[in-house]
Amino acid sequence: MPQRTYAILGTGALGGFYGARLQRAGLEVHFLLHSDFEHVRRHGLKVESKDGDFELPRVKAYGHVRDMPPCDVAIVALKATQNHLLPDLLPPVMKKDGVALIMQNGIGAEDEAARAVGPDRVMGGLCFLCSNKVGPGHIRHLDYGSVTLADHSAENEPCGITPRMKEIGEDFQRAGLPVELVEDLVLARWKKLVWNIPFSGLSVVLNALTDELMADPQTRELSVELMLEVVAGAAGSERVIPASFLEKMIADTDKMPPYRTSMHIDFEQKRPMEVEAIFGNPLRIANNAGIEVPRIEMLYQQLKFLDQRNKAPHWAPKT
Amino acid sequence: MPQRTYAILGTGALGGFYGARLQRAGLEVHFLLHSDFEHVRRHGLKVESKDGDFELPRVKAYGHVRDMPPCDVAIVALKATQNHLLPDLLPPVMKKDGVALIMQNGIGAEDEAARAVGPDRVMGGLCFLCSNKVGPGHIRHLDYGSVTLADHSAENEPCGITPRMKEIGEDFQRAGLPVELVEDLVLARWKKLVWNIPFSGLSVVLNALTDELMADPQTRELSVELMLEVVAGAAGSERVIPASFLEKMIADTDKMPPYRTSMHIDFEQKRPMEVEAIFGNPLRIANNAGIEVPRIEMLYQQLKFLDQRNKAPHWAPKT
Repeated sequence: MPQRTYAILGTGALGGFYGARLQRAGLEVHFLLHSDFEHVRRHGLKVESKDGDFELPRVKAYGHVRDMPPCDVAIVALKATQNHLLPDLLPPVMKKDGVALIMQNGIGAEDEAARAVGPDRVMGGLCFLCSNKVGPGHIRHLDYGSVTLADHSAENEPCGITPRMKEIGEDFQRAGLPVELVEDLVLARWKKLVWNIPFSGLSVVLNALTDELMADPQTRELSVELMLEVVAGAAGSERVIPASFLEKMIADTDKMPPYRTSMHIDFEQKRPMEVEAIFGNPLRIANNAGIEVPRIEMLYQQLKFLDQRNKAPHWAPKT
Repeated sequence: MPQRTYAILGTGALGGFYGARLQRAGLEVHFLLHSDFEHVRRHGLKVESKDGDFELPRVKAYGHVRDMPPCDVAIVALKATQNHLLPDLLPPVMKKDGVALIMQNGIGAEDEAARAVGPDRVMGGLCFLCSNKVGPGHIRHLDYGSVTLADHSAENEPCGITPRMKEIGEDFQRAGLPVELVEDLVLARWKKLVWNIPFSGLSVVLNALTDELMADPQTRELSVELMLEVVAGAAGSERVIPASFLEKMIADTDKMPPYRTSMHIDFEQKRPMEVEAIFGNPLRIANNAGIEVPRIEMLYQQLKFLDQRNKAPHWAPKT
């Protein structure tokens, strides 16, 4: 059986890390790059990692999807703010029976990809990864790295464990990455929001690391209230998150070293934040089902204000 | 009839302004100072004002209440964060039939003063004033200056228009300041929160001026939602704020020049913020009456976090 081929759409902290690990494991990987294209074409990729540093002096680098071959798996590792590009990016890099693997935070990206390539050609991947891009083609992997895979259906119903999930999961395991296969993508996405909504949101609005938010009694209480609103909102997708999951998230976060969320880094570096994917879409799902989530809504409003101002430096507060 | 005498507890942007205007109008005023005591004792007060600059080269300045004479009116112009000092500060400066006039924002200060001097010796003053202290004994009055007076009762019931309100009101009018006398102190305090809660709170959390908060559709909507929660919370004090009042606040704020709230200035200068007076006390009144005000609660939690961190520089986010 021939090995699966991979296209990486977005060779940054996440796509660069997973793509490099897959190539090192012997798989054929094609990397789409933007600003780093020339550098990576000449010098390849460099990964500093707690699992061991490595370099890939030669990688298949591309500046345009039109130059890339159709692949079995197209890993979407763009920021969710760029998903309007999917109708242009995905079709050229996917074989007819290929699959787009959405490795993003938030909710709604699979539906966007499905509109571009059809609902049967989309899968979700949830990444528990702490990594940064520290220079052109240079990735620093700080912690974690596991991937949760779940298949997508047009009706957003649980798909069970499909053969292609297993196959792709084996590739990631071959690359030394912990993999979990789950039956219900929508539930998995809502569960990830239980952490992302309080900590991504409050870290930006309050310019805080996770340990500060956990140590202060007020923000700790607010984080739990936001988690409870995520649980309430998940009912809008007819999903139930057990209370024990919240307790685990709180305990895990208490144990984490001081952590700067990726949304916080995006904000500080004046990059667009994934506000719609992580806050706007869940908010709309809850509201459409008649569920009130006022704290999530308020965080959404605050983040939209900050995101908008970040784009327009002339709007900075006068002094 | 002898003229009323005034004690000013807290000769800052507010107390310094009103005290200086009363003295200029011919009244006997005694100023309590802290850090500026020596300077003001020697050089008096200087007021730059849109109503005309003036200086008072000689004022009755004190560093301790024990040196001050008992007065007819003790104007409490401290920050509400210092109200724990009232039992020490008020009794020495008040005549037996004197009154403490609480010129602070928020809710609850009259009750604190009443515990120190008795409920019959307390009155509320709501100031619509934009002024800053720009140096020792040096006040810059930017805009407004009107005062709303309302009497206090132990039961927090409307007191009507009392003779002492009229008398003190006449002193302020003699000093050229617009005065309004209202029957219901608690309603007046809640109405002031309709503006203070959204704009003081969001200006700090989002580091924003009022015009930015009004121009962005998300924060404009959030400001209105917060106003509506203030209206809901006022029911906890059995007060009704008419919808037309909110419309007027919004229209007035649209017309204001870009404005930095005093809470925002306190935060930037790392001074304690009046979070309990403006947010905590109204929140507790609403909650005790079983009224949910989740957005006010979230703003309270965010501000408490920021206020606490402001006090502890070693807690600043690591980079």
